[in-house]
Amino acid sequence: MTYSYVSHLECPVCDTTYDANKIQQLCTCGSPLLVRYDLERVRNEVKRSAIRERNPDLWRYHELLPVQHEDHVITLGEGMTPLLSMPKLGERYGLTHLYMKDESLIPTGSFKARGAAVGISKAKELGVQQFAMPTNGNAGAAWALYAARAGIKATIVMPQDAPSITRTEVSLSGAELFLVNGLISDAGKMVAEKVKHDQIYDASTLKEPYRIEGKKTMGLEIAEQLGWAMPDVILYPTGGGVGLIGIYKALQELKEIGWLAGKLPRLVAVQAEGCAPIVKAWEEKKERSEFWEQSTTVAFGINVPKALGDFLVLRALYETDGMAIAISDQELLEEQQHIAEYEGAFVCPEGAATFAAAKRLTEQGWIGRDESVVVLNTGAGIKYPDTVKIEVPLLEIGESII
Amino acid sequence: MTYSYVSHLECPVCDTTYDANKIQQLCTCGSPLLVRYDLERVRNEVKRSAIRERNPDLWRYHELLPVQHEDHVITLGEGMTPLLSMPKLGERYGLTHLYMKDESLIPTGSFKARGAAVGISKAKELGVQQFAMPTNGNAGAAWALYAARAGIKATIVMPQDAPSITRTEVSLSGAELFLVNGLISDAGKMVAEKVKHDQIYDASTLKEPYRIEGKKTMGLEIAEQLGWAMPDVILYPTGGGVGLIGIYKALQELKEIGWLAGKLPRLVAVQAEGCAPIVKAWEEKKERSEFWEQSTTVAFGINVPKALGDFLVLRALYETDGMAIAISDQELLEEQQHIAEYEGAFVCPEGAATFAAAKRLTEQGWIGRDESVVVLNTGAGIKYPDTVKIEVPLLEIGESII
Repeated sequence: MTYSYVSHLECPVCDTTYDANKIQQLCTCGSPLLVRYDLERVRNEVKRSAIRERNPDLWRYHELLPVQHEDHVITLGEGMTPLLSMPKLGERYGLTHLYMKDESLIPTGSFKARGAAVGISKAKELGVQQFAMPTNGNAGAAWALYAARAGIKATIVMPQDAPSITRTEVSLSGAELFLVNGLISDAGKMVAEKVKHDQIYDASTLKEPYRIEGKKTMGLEIAEQLGWAMPDVILYPTGGGVGLIGIYKALQELKEIGWLAGKLPRLVAVQAEGCAPIVKAWEEKKERSEFWEQSTTVAFGINVPKALGDFLVLRALYETDGMAIAISDQELLEEQQHIAEYEGAFVCPEGAATFAAAKRLTEQGWIGRDESVVVLNTGAGIKYPDTVKIEVPLLEIGESII
Repeated sequence: MTYSYVSHLECPVCDTTYDANKIQQLCTCGSPLLVRYDLERVRNEVKRSAIRERNPDLWRYHELLPVQHEDHVITLGEGMTPLLSMPKLGERYGLTHLYMKDESLIPTGSFKARGAAVGISKAKELGVQQFAMPTNGNAGAAWALYAARAGIKATIVMPQDAPSITRTEVSLSGAELFLVNGLISDAGKMVAEKVKHDQIYDASTLKEPYRIEGKKTMGLEIAEQLGWAMPDVILYPTGGGVGLIGIYKALQELKEIGWLAGKLPRLVAVQAEGCAPIVKAWEEKKERSEFWEQSTTVAFGINVPKALGDFLVLRALYETDGMAIAISDQELLEEQQHIAEYEGAFVCPEGAATFAAAKRLTEQGWIGRDESVVVLNTGAGIKYPDTVKIEVPLLEIGESII
């Protein structure tokens, strides 16, 4: 039985192809590489009904993942997160079919675990023994922990302002950790220098081709969970944008192998007003974004002033008749509270931004009230204790609460 | 189709039975009540092979749960958490078959979500509109959030020293929250006074009969995930002990309906040295525990000086040839680090205690090296940022990490 139908790597800019059995980073032209599969063989040899009986993790789609031998899979049980109906919040927004894909139920409490699971597994298969990467926190935590399980050595550099729990995760894993008094772009420069000097694997976003494949599984799961159908709209909090690129890739692949039919959902990139390079580029109908100066937002995971894959994100928006929208910190924090009050979900700030966008786009009529809408909550609110301010009465023993 | 095969409630002390279609709390004799099912009908009418194709959440076992109408189910996608092989840690302990049941991949990041999902769903079915409960943090967070989703009003009282993120969870949900400068037993007294005065539902541990049923699903899942087989040993961090009582109940029910055969696993109650009433009672071969004075441990979830269900926990230990063991805070904190370094899992302090117990019992020969061992990690380490002390170098922009 063929475990993976991976065929090769391909540059989406200059079409150069690369061997997927060797370590590859960027294309010589500077673009990220995409993983290609023998989709015709998948169409002929794999039945989607076979998926149903497999374990509820992302490896159930192993034919469409790049790891060639099951023995190389490094898993902490990631994937098949819930697709939850949000009826009360939907009613508040004026939406009949509102769903949350809830990535808080995943190792490390963030969707970054998907990219790390597939990225680390493939790195192990390729013989990688050491890597370095910059991170806004959650990706570094996930990669460090999966690396520990795989026995791979990791160096992680993150901004001082990244969620502090992610420091603890990296540190506990035994990885080498540095904080920088700057942004992820500053951390990125340090990592670039290190990987060049030490000749080690560069696991920076999109500089290795496999984390997209992990993130792609969000799209595969949404399709399966909707009974192999697509929603009308998917909203995604967009920093580096890998998840959006991955979801788009997943749905295209599913169409090509015949497991899905019809129009692709309109993809919406949700950013913060304090860091909205994709929104600006989309409004100006550009192919690429520009570096966003002095970016700032409480939704730290989407504080990415310039994404390497910006052109792939924008391409996905244009080709699906999607759009990009920016949300203020105040709006997303208010929405975070409403989501908990109405539906009992404590989402991360990035996820809350996505809900706020769904609300606003429905009010504006861009989303129709009977359309089916999936919002991505990319992580657990419990990783961000400081974004919520509360006051609680303190009682002494024996006091009454009547 | 029958959704639930619930038949009635039964007192495990005096055998009095109660109607499961009405709100019930403790037995008139003071004991917690247990839910009983028509297991003979389950045996005749339900096939365990049917379970395999259902959604990966705890409602896949709805025939063995107390909610009678699917419409009353309040779910955030809880259950079917991973049962992970821990080969490197197993080698370190001298164990060939070590598994972790990882309850960090669940809403609210704690196994308490299971009790809350089933408890709140059944409360809704019974028409409950308001409840109060004391908590060491995680149970209150879970019940408050599920209550918000159900539209039920909640009052939560927790010790000031409970994990601070759980305050945020309760507060965001819109529930009424009080902190007390004392222990869960002090919070319990305040709640007892309130429920009596306001005539509202008492959701204190084991004072309502349904959270056991939620926790029971951990046992159902372990059995299914091992291919409808039982491990030799299950270790469980024991505060109130509901999970252990639930797992024991699950395995007994599965045997009775014929989905499992053979000897039940030896159940091990793991406590902290600073709060070990069950261990003391077990060593003295007593039926009940005594209040543990001035209890203290970093594993806050198991800081329960006297559990209402202590006699049910002890009964499960005696009847399965199990045991009870206490772990020091230093031991469990060291083990927490090892688990992350060896296997990439950031477990909660209570979970870490359970691993430390597995290690010690293997060294002592109580667990044989070829026995299959399941340790329960009851929650996500990310909920306890302060238990891990780390030091990380801070760099300025442009500094080198080579």
